[in-house]
Amino acid sequence: MKYKTTQQALDAMQALQETLAAYHHVMGVTYLDASTCAPKGSYECRGKAMGILSRITYDLMANPDNDEMLSALEADIDSLSQQQKREVEVLRKNYDQLNRIPAEEYVQYSVLLNDAEAMWEKAKNQNDFELFAPYLEKIVDFNIKFAGYYDAGKHPYDALLNEYEEGLTMETLDGFFGQLRSAIVPLLERIGEAEPVDNSFLFRKYPVEKQKEFAKYLMEVLDMDPNFCAISESEHPFTNGFNNKDVRITTHYYENAPTFAMYSTIHEGGHAIYELDIDDCYNFSTLSGGASMGIHESQSRFYENLIGRSRAFTSYVFPKLKELFPEQLADVDEEMFYRGVNKVEPSLIRTEADELTYSLHIMVRYEIEKMLISREISVQDVPATWNRLYKEYLGVEVPDDTNGCLQDIHWAGGSIGYFPSYALGSAYGPQMLAVMQKEVGDIYQDVEKGDLSKARAWLKENIHRHSALYKPGELFERCCGKFDAKYFTDYLTKKFSEIYDL
Amino acid sequence: MKYKTTQQALDAMQALQETLAAYHHVMGVTYLDASTCAPKGSYECRGKAMGILSRITYDLMANPDNDEMLSALEADIDSLSQQQKREVEVLRKNYDQLNRIPAEEYVQYSVLLNDAEAMWEKAKNQNDFELFAPYLEKIVDFNIKFAGYYDAGKHPYDALLNEYEEGLTMETLDGFFGQLRSAIVPLLERIGEAEPVDNSFLFRKYPVEKQKEFAKYLMEVLDMDPNFCAISESEHPFTNGFNNKDVRITTHYYENAPTFAMYSTIHEGGHAIYELDIDDCYNFSTLSGGASMGIHESQSRFYENLIGRSRAFTSYVFPKLKELFPEQLADVDEEMFYRGVNKVEPSLIRTEADELTYSLHIMVRYEIEKMLISREISVQDVPATWNRLYKEYLGVEVPDDTNGCLQDIHWAGGSIGYFPSYALGSAYGPQMLAVMQKEVGDIYQDVEKGDLSKARAWLKENIHRHSALYKPGELFERCCGKFDAKYFTDYLTKKFSEIYDL
Repeated sequence: MKYKTTQQALDAMQALQETLAAYHHVMGVTYLDASTCAPKGSYECRGKAMGILSRITYDLMANPDNDEMLSALEADIDSLSQQQKREVEVLRKNYDQLNRIPAEEYVQYSVLLNDAEAMWEKAKNQNDFELFAPYLEKIVDFNIKFAGYYDAGKHPYDALLNEYEEGLTMETLDGFFGQLRSAIVPLLERIGEAEPVDNSFLFRKYPVEKQKEFAKYLMEVLDMDPNFCAISESEHPFTNGFNNKDVRITTHYYENAPTFAMYSTIHEGGHAIYELDIDDCYNFSTLSGGASMGIHESQSRFYENLIGRSRAFTSYVFPKLKELFPEQLADVDEEMFYRGVNKVEPSLIRTEADELTYSLHIMVRYEIEKMLISREISVQDVPATWNRLYKEYLGVEVPDDTNGCLQDIHWAGGSIGYFPSYALGSAYGPQMLAVMQKEVGDIYQDVEKGDLSKARAWLKENIHRHSALYKPGELFERCCGKFDAKYFTDYLTKKFSEIYDL
Repeated sequence: MKYKTTQQALDAMQALQETLAAYHHVMGVTYLDASTCAPKGSYECRGKAMGILSRITYDLMANPDNDEMLSALEADIDSLSQQQKREVEVLRKNYDQLNRIPAEEYVQYSVLLNDAEAMWEKAKNQNDFELFAPYLEKIVDFNIKFAGYYDAGKHPYDALLNEYEEGLTMETLDGFFGQLRSAIVPLLERIGEAEPVDNSFLFRKYPVEKQKEFAKYLMEVLDMDPNFCAISESEHPFTNGFNNKDVRITTHYYENAPTFAMYSTIHEGGHAIYELDIDDCYNFSTLSGGASMGIHESQSRFYENLIGRSRAFTSYVFPKLKELFPEQLADVDEEMFYRGVNKVEPSLIRTEADELTYSLHIMVRYEIEKMLISREISVQDVPATWNRLYKEYLGVEVPDDTNGCLQDIHWAGGSIGYFPSYALGSAYGPQMLAVMQKEVGDIYQDVEKGDLSKARAWLKENIHRHSALYKPGELFERCCGKFDAKYFTDYLTKKFSEIYDL
């Protein structure tokens, strides 16, 4: 017995968590730097360095001493605080899972992902799927293998889904997406027959420097403390929080599409606010970083759509836009802007999708992932399948892979089973909003004045501050009761019926 | 015996080096990020993470297994390659040093430096040397003690010099600085009596965006491959090379002082080119990163001064400057620009010093360090000694300690014996230049056309590619023969006599 007392085991658990957090911190910064500042040719040596450290963190977590430590704590679990109990639970899950993945495979996979991301970017830029295909094949193979390690009793895709959102299954998702489809598709049809919204003014020339100024302004409106949060530029926007005192978001500025930087800043802002509002006690804990991908996405989309695309918000920020872009918006008023940023238009790019069709983009990825992991299609079939499903669900022709199956970084980053949490996240929000409005009153009266504090306070109290203290489903149910996608479909129907005067 | 064969020990040495390099890589990126992108409030958690990893790398290097491994290799040293032999030598030095300092003292010293830097900043801001004095006293005491651990047979200051520039001694430096003093001080007096150079046009308003464009242009002229080298912004310029495929420089743009960004970019460019031109075999080796501080500084100052402040270079880049800043330079011609960037002006602050007076600033610090470590003066004597030497060498009156002995962070950071490598670096360059010109012909004919390849090829072949395969003195002597400061003083005398028409 290495641990004679519970306190000794607790000390060991604390040391383990802090050491893991230190590695995650510097490796996270290295990842951030790779996506924002690093010269392109640096990827190979960085991959080697990251591979070495991945191996070290693997060994650290897979160390059999941890089994002994966790067993000692599990034997005296009632004496532990709520946070400690949950830390034991999460570390146990990680330990068991890691010990099912052979160390060599874990390291090979880390190195593969580093190379795959660089190659994905090249393939996307050159519209050459063949460059990326061999990497994606290996990533799929690894994921199928890992799924078996996670839970051999489950369908491999269910095992992967469970990694991102504990308890999520294909059965649930098939039902959920079915519900969405039966609400969205008819609505979309009626919108197709309605008077189209004009958003052509959003594709004029908006100088990047002014867009940057607007992004800074948005971060102020969202009250993202610049002392603890910074923005930079990358190919694909993302958020990386190292602790609640150091959160980074990225965006990408397109001169002819200012709403990309605008809404990606608000979206990543939602992720960032979540991380910034986590209680201090979770820094350097394995419970840091939030409850789950789905809950995280619910926060980013809450900010992006329920706040950012509300009439209250667009009317508040519109004068600032007029000030920065007087010529571009000379013939545009508040209402035109609100309708413009809410234009429904089946399109090619997920991250540019409107709120209504967004879930259909996810559905395409969900179907493809399911088929890839079930070996119903091969990686070579991905482009054609992608194009077919886009035609089927969204009615659009995909002209090339850059605007098709190469558009997202996720698969290159090894995330298979992650996309569904986006759709789930979108659907969590309206239910949270309904409860919030009931408990604290109308948030939009304040949003209209640029005051987002009421919504944030509710989210902080009910979601943010707890980080991963509760399982995602439990966290949601504690404040919102049983999840029901009807809040989402009702919200969409009401909002877009009004905009399109249906 | 843990290592049964030499190959086993070699494998262990390789693994140790690669692991150390991986840590240095991600910790280096984290440092870079902290200086360029990180939000200010992030320092505390980052400090904790870096502290944890510093301790891990300390334990990794101080591990007694390494003694066994190195002993095994030393016992069969003749069978090793030249690179492996040198790796054994350097690792042995690092291991012995780390293990000679009692862990308790190492920790006390780390805590002291952390406090000392904070107190130095306060003392500098408040112009109150007494605040900093007790810390400097302890730092001096620790350095004298550590010098004894490093090499009890040497004068303690020689032992400290050897830490930063292997083999460097007071005897060498006394001769070197004596030579400099007798050449520079009279030259400076004559310049003081000559017609002053007008450089007032360098303090007009130069928009930062245009300066950034110029910095990119300079990196192109210097042929710094953007695939492996990137520039960003920080408070103080620096270079950070992780390997020869990933080198970063930083600069700082001041709207009213464009030559700061210009010459810091060229200076850091020299450091970067050194790192980029190191042979691949030194990546992930303990021999990566160059031969020494002094050799590194010789390359940065070669580019900054011998190339960047040459008439050939300034005349080549001047048209680009005129293009970017037509109004600011409307009344300025090539020759005025050349003279402007070479204006000599004895001043108080080292980092703002011109090429001629720079070494005098270092000389003051050298004299004081020598006396402190020899216990010839006490910390209490530092301000008066500083002021006396600035008057004697540079002819300037020091008005206060903020602009005097409190200006540099180095002593607060524990670096005693480091400054001389700056002066040595400056002096190495002209001797390299003389040999280079003899071997490959006049480089300035090419520089005038924007072609720096001839100089770089020589530097790569003779200096860069070897990294730390040779000790710095040996590396220098292999290509340039015995070091003689006369090359430096002759160069300065000729250059500034011409500019000032003496």
